[in-house]
Amino acid sequence: MSSTIGTLFRVTTFGESHGLGVGAVVDGCPPRLALDESDLQPQLDRRRPGQSDLATPRREADRVAILSGVENGRTLGTPIALLVRNRDARPGDYGSMARIPRPSHADYTYLRKYGIHAASGGGRSSARETIGRVAAGAIAEKVLRLAYGVELTAWVSAAGEVEAPDRTADPPARAEIDRHPMRGPDPESAERMAAAVAAAREARDSIGGVVTCVARGLPPGWGEPVFEKLEAALGQALLSLPAAKGFEIGSGFAGARLRGSEHNDAFAAGAPGTLATAANRSGGVQGGISNGQPVVFRVAFKPPATIGRPQATVDLDGRPVTLEAAGRHDPCVVPRAVPIVETMAALVLLDSALRQEARDAIAGRIAEHGA
Amino acid sequence: MSSTIGTLFRVTTFGESHGLGVGAVVDGCPPRLALDESDLQPQLDRRRPGQSDLATPRREADRVAILSGVENGRTLGTPIALLVRNRDARPGDYGSMARIPRPSHADYTYLRKYGIHAASGGGRSSARETIGRVAAGAIAEKVLRLAYGVELTAWVSAAGEVEAPDRTADPPARAEIDRHPMRGPDPESAERMAAAVAAAREARDSIGGVVTCVARGLPPGWGEPVFEKLEAALGQALLSLPAAKGFEIGSGFAGARLRGSEHNDAFAAGAPGTLATAANRSGGVQGGISNGQPVVFRVAFKPPATIGRPQATVDLDGRPVTLEAAGRHDPCVVPRAVPIVETMAALVLLDSALRQEARDAIAGRIAEHGA
Amino acid sequence: MSSTIGTLFRVTTFGESHGLGVGAVVDGCPPRLALDESDLQPQLDRRRPGQSDLATPRREADRVAILSGVENGRTLGTPIALLVRNRDARPGDYGSMARIPRPSHADYTYLRKYGIHAASGGGRSSARETIGRVAAGAIAEKVLRLAYGVELTAWVSAAGEVEAPDRTADPPARAEIDRHPMRGPDPESAERMAAAVAAAREARDSIGGVVTCVARGLPPGWGEPVFEKLEAALGQALLSLPAAKGFEIGSGFAGARLRGSEHNDAFAAGAPGTLATAANRSGGVQGGISNGQPVVFRVAFKPPATIGRPQATVDLDGRPVTLEAAGRHDPCVVPRAVPIVETMAALVLLDSALRQEARDAIAGRIAEHGA
Amino acid sequence: MSSTIGTLFRVTTFGESHGLGVGAVVDGCPPRLALDESDLQPQLDRRRPGQSDLATPRREADRVAILSGVENGRTLGTPIALLVRNRDARPGDYGSMARIPRPSHADYTYLRKYGIHAASGGGRSSARETIGRVAAGAIAEKVLRLAYGVELTAWVSAAGEVEAPDRTADPPARAEIDRHPMRGPDPESAERMAAAVAAAREARDSIGGVVTCVARGLPPGWGEPVFEKLEAALGQALLSLPAAKGFEIGSGFAGARLRGSEHNDAFAAGAPGTLATAANRSGGVQGGISNGQPVVFRVAFKPPATIGRPQATVDLDGRPVTLEAAGRHDPCVVPRAVPIVETMAALVLLDSALRQEARDAIAGRIAEHGA
Repeated sequence: MSSTIGTLFRVTTFGESHGLGVGAVVDGCPPRLALDESDLQPQLDRRRPGQSDLATPRREADRVAILSGVENGRTLGTPIALLVRNRDARPGDYGSMARIPRPSHADYTYLRKYGIHAASGGGRSSARETIGRVAAGAIAEKVLRLAYGVELTAWVSAAGEVEAPDRTADPPARAEIDRHPMRGPDPESAERMAAAVAAAREARDSIGGVVTCVARGLPPGWGEPVFEKLEAALGQALLSLPAAKGFEIGSGFAGARLRGSEHNDAFAAGAPGTLATAANRSGGVQGGISNGQPVVFRVAFKPPATIGRPQATVDLDGRPVTLEAAGRHDPCVVPRAVPIVETMAALVLLDSALRQEARDAIAGRIAEHGA
Repeated sequence: MSSTIGTLFRVTTFGESHGLGVGAVVDGCPPRLALDESDLQPQLDRRRPGQSDLATPRREADRVAILSGVENGRTLGTPIALLVRNRDARPGDYGSMARIPRPSHADYTYLRKYGIHAASGGGRSSARETIGRVAAGAIAEKVLRLAYGVELTAWVSAAGEVEAPDRTADPPARAEIDRHPMRGPDPESAERMAAAVAAAREARDSIGGVVTCVARGLPPGWGEPVFEKLEAALGQALLSLPAAKGFEIGSGFAGARLRGSEHNDAFAAGAPGTLATAANRSGGVQGGISNGQPVVFRVAFKPPATIGRPQATVDLDGRPVTLEAAGRHDPCVVPRAVPIVETMAALVLLDSALRQEARDAIAGRIAEHGA
Repeated sequence: MSSTIGTLFRVTTFGESHGLGVGAVVDGCPPRLALDESDLQPQLDRRRPGQSDLATPRREADRVAILSGVENGRTLGTPIALLVRNRDARPGDYGSMARIPRPSHADYTYLRKYGIHAASGGGRSSARETIGRVAAGAIAEKVLRLAYGVELTAWVSAAGEVEAPDRTADPPARAEIDRHPMRGPDPESAERMAAAVAAAREARDSIGGVVTCVARGLPPGWGEPVFEKLEAALGQALLSLPAAKGFEIGSGFAGARLRGSEHNDAFAAGAPGTLATAANRSGGVQGGISNGQPVVFRVAFKPPATIGRPQATVDLDGRPVTLEAAGRHDPCVVPRAVPIVETMAALVLLDSALRQEARDAIAGRIAEHGA
Repeated sequence: MSSTIGTLFRVTTFGESHGLGVGAVVDGCPPRLALDESDLQPQLDRRRPGQSDLATPRREADRVAILSGVENGRTLGTPIALLVRNRDARPGDYGSMARIPRPSHADYTYLRKYGIHAASGGGRSSARETIGRVAAGAIAEKVLRLAYGVELTAWVSAAGEVEAPDRTADPPARAEIDRHPMRGPDPESAERMAAAVAAAREARDSIGGVVTCVARGLPPGWGEPVFEKLEAALGQALLSLPAAKGFEIGSGFAGARLRGSEHNDAFAAGAPGTLATAANRSGGVQGGISNGQPVVFRVAFKPPATIGRPQATVDLDGRPVTLEAAGRHDPCVVPRAVPIVETMAALVLLDSALRQEARDAIAGRIAEHGA
């Protein structure tokens, strides 16, 4: 397992879908930060199942408890342990699947990797694992906002074959995004997406989608060449999400079709002492380092593998069977993925920021005292 | 900087485009492996500039020397230091750019991050930095081939607007790919791609492209949930390449448009004791773990930022200037990116393999001796 | 903070002395291991305060709960979260110290490092932080025992000026050690140590001591040159314990006084295919790698800083004050340090073992299939 | 192998005693630092063999070359590759030992770990491996001096049974230390140590010794609880040196004999805004964090294992043999260990400093802009 991410702001998650609970330990949080559970709960609530009839009916309050690292409402700089207890775990729901690995789920691969598999549900591969990430990432979001004014906004830019208009140059506010349960960038396309989800659910099927995220307010200089370039670190973080199949920054795959003269972001005068770029096909990153423009990326999520329709597959002995899924699942994960994408990106950005702070501080000292 | 990648097979790269040399230190290479420079040179030769008139005319023999870790043609298990000396460095070529950050290059961001920038060329952000990666990855490729029979094959699947037919289900051999300097999967599309590159060069412009890679022969069980899932680790590695803007595994962004019933990979009986999947929209990975099917991914590269056409931009003081690039550069990087993609993937796969070996070995011991 | 240790068997601890609880997340535990709380409780009980009148009267049942990673009594290979709730926290006890940093405690340094300090008790610097280590290390001990037959035994070899006879060549069993609350290696010296502790307590003072540890059953080959040599990794782990001031392996500081001809461990024929050494001044390690002999090391612990005697010191403003400690503390920590030393060593040994398993496995595959 | 140390200032070493060369890659060096080879050579010269007849007669100029990361005498913030070529390698010297593992050397353990061993000399376990450490650490020393005014001084405080007077409260200057080839703290004891070394050499034997190191000028706040406490990180770094058998900080093992009332470092008013301590039995560290007092530690080195006297041992088949060593070796390593100890400590201190800079910077931003 590799359940830890980050170098200076380091998050370790734990927990399976049907055990006692899920959570995270956040090591390296800045000290003296005002923090309590109310800072974490909003993003957990946005991630929570059962928010609308677009999502799984599993009911979980998902109330987070801070077990350590905070005293009298201030962080101590010590590890912050976060715990969300599982309440509505129903192991029985999955009993019949023990011998039938679900297609495009992780049942088979976990069994082959570990020689054992959680008896019910997705275990560690469940989307429930993301709770620890979201709780931890909500702390990172707060730090980024207070220390740098960085704001992250994600939304559903596509669901199935429905694509929303591009809003990367003019990102909607979170409140605006949350106005519709699809979390699309505008009411009209959100409504069409919702119809696509409803049609899939009706057909006992599921659909995939794309989440677009924009981070504004980064100063130039974040991102660590060469293996932890900002886009590489973001790519790792986002591709580690359940069901993620693709990641692109800035122009992405479409950019590969362009010519250099079309793609290059010419510089323009920026705020005093800085340069801006006329366009932002770079997605806010050049050479793996933030350039001061908004960081823009997109994440593709496949359709949820659990569907109500019968599937012809084989059991662990290779014998043909027809699988009909029980359990409670989302016909479309992307609305709930929105806060997960935001918080995962926040983890990466804060870690990059801290590393650059160390560099800036020491280089400044050398310049001041040194040769 | 973050110039190290990997946990058990760990590679640290160094070097700028116009310094004394570039290279890598490989820590964790298995001992007793037959190894000498001739194992590394072929992939370096495929990466080398000046192979055809499709690429930069910079002339570098790029001969690698093994400085440590190998004795009498066998690895000792100790760090293998690899060095390629720069020969055709011409710092003067870039002198005029000192005050004009090149659009969509890393000049500006390096300057803002480090407060200093290599006086000439891309410095650390140059594609020359990938030499160390390729040399190190060639070792990983050899280990993967000998120990597991894993074979990696990449090719140019798109250049500009030209797309090659899909060959992921039936990957061409390396020799076949190398038959045409475009490294496309078939002669006809390669020719059309080459025409697109030629047209761009003619226009003193550049074009982007896509590299597709298939890794065959992986057993089930590689990849470390949750933050180093195989697709996350591959995504980080590939997105850390210069000019990379997107990564997708299996169905990728196209998969987001599908329904679950269309996307799911039903299981079928496989080799004794294993299951296969009928289709491979998962790209060989489920829940972040290899399932025994070929691992299939694609990487999008933007068009090279250096173009001969004049560009309207600003200098570091924000004053409008017209930039006309000198220096020697590729109109299209993707043919040379092919070995880089293969070797970067090899680094990730071998690291994942080693981690799974440790798990398997100890679990086996417990089962044998333990409760 | 840096609350994570280990590369493949990775432990992250959390918790302060007077918060909601303390614990750890263990990532990389082998799957399919039989495990429940009863495997962890014995070492926690040996570490627990209030075992005898030699130790602090603070009462804590210190019952551990496994929150994740185990199902139906078997590990899943996923992170194991361990939690011990604090029950007998009495923040009020320490209120008067807010402005007076306790001499040789971490109050002042935590305040200078973090700009904030837990309002009561030692916070993160409390010996209570070691609970997570012990719980995690007890898992490592079980794996080492089942997979390799490795047994770790530690005891109090000195308390204050009382030294016990050397038992490193013939280590006592745990049951024998636990027969006396001092955890000395023999009844007679244990009794003299206990008298020294009693005298210190009588004088409202404290005394230090030394814990000796022997690990038997390691095969040759564990330990990762050069920066994680076995003695370096053990040294880090043991010196990270509260109050630890020194670490030595094998002959240690005394060895520095010897000549090479006196110090060298000549080889002798060992079990078939192996060599033994006549003496063991190397402490089971040569060149940072286990040689198959028992690993022997010693850890020095300073006397507890909290004493009942009045101390002349200054407050945070530099004004002279006389400090009289309240709170409940051990006059001598070394008996309770015994299980902590054993479990910390187990963490290091298991991590080293796993890394060597990966190396052996892949080198074996190459030899089998390869050139 | 684990040839990398550090989190933000990260050093990777490579090279065997009789290969092409040894060196290091330094990642995370602050940018814009004035640096060239002349900054590194003095400590390499102090480490070099053949400085006096107290040391091995092997002749190596040990001239370091900077291959990357520096341009026009300034660091770029990119990896600095350092290479020292081996010149006086004489593999033949060791040929006769192939089947006889040298007692208390790493021949046997390397063979068991890797299944292969460098054909001559110590290979990776040779003291020659420390060249990369020293070159890298010399950079760290320069940064610490310029940025913080931190000065490290080490000396030989014991050789064999000869102990020098304690100078930890009043450390000698480097020039003073280098006045005598023994690098003792005063001429009289240095002379007695030299006599002990001469007597050992005369007897074709060797002796061990102790190096004491003091780092002055650290601000309070360096060191990362809990697993990378300053003494734990220093302990790891120093115990990773060839022949190191013990490490103690402050009072060390002697402190274990004291009572708390004798051991505690009462606070006293310090420079404005800080506290000092009257004594320094803590060795400058409390709770794993620097307290602003000098950091004081000692490292025990065993006598070199290579001696000219015949040794009764066994060969790899367990057959009794008498070994008479050839090769060129030091009768006493500690004078040459002095710069190694200083530079290793510098690596640890700078890494700790950088991590604290990141914390301070972000906490400052939050306090400024935040709640």
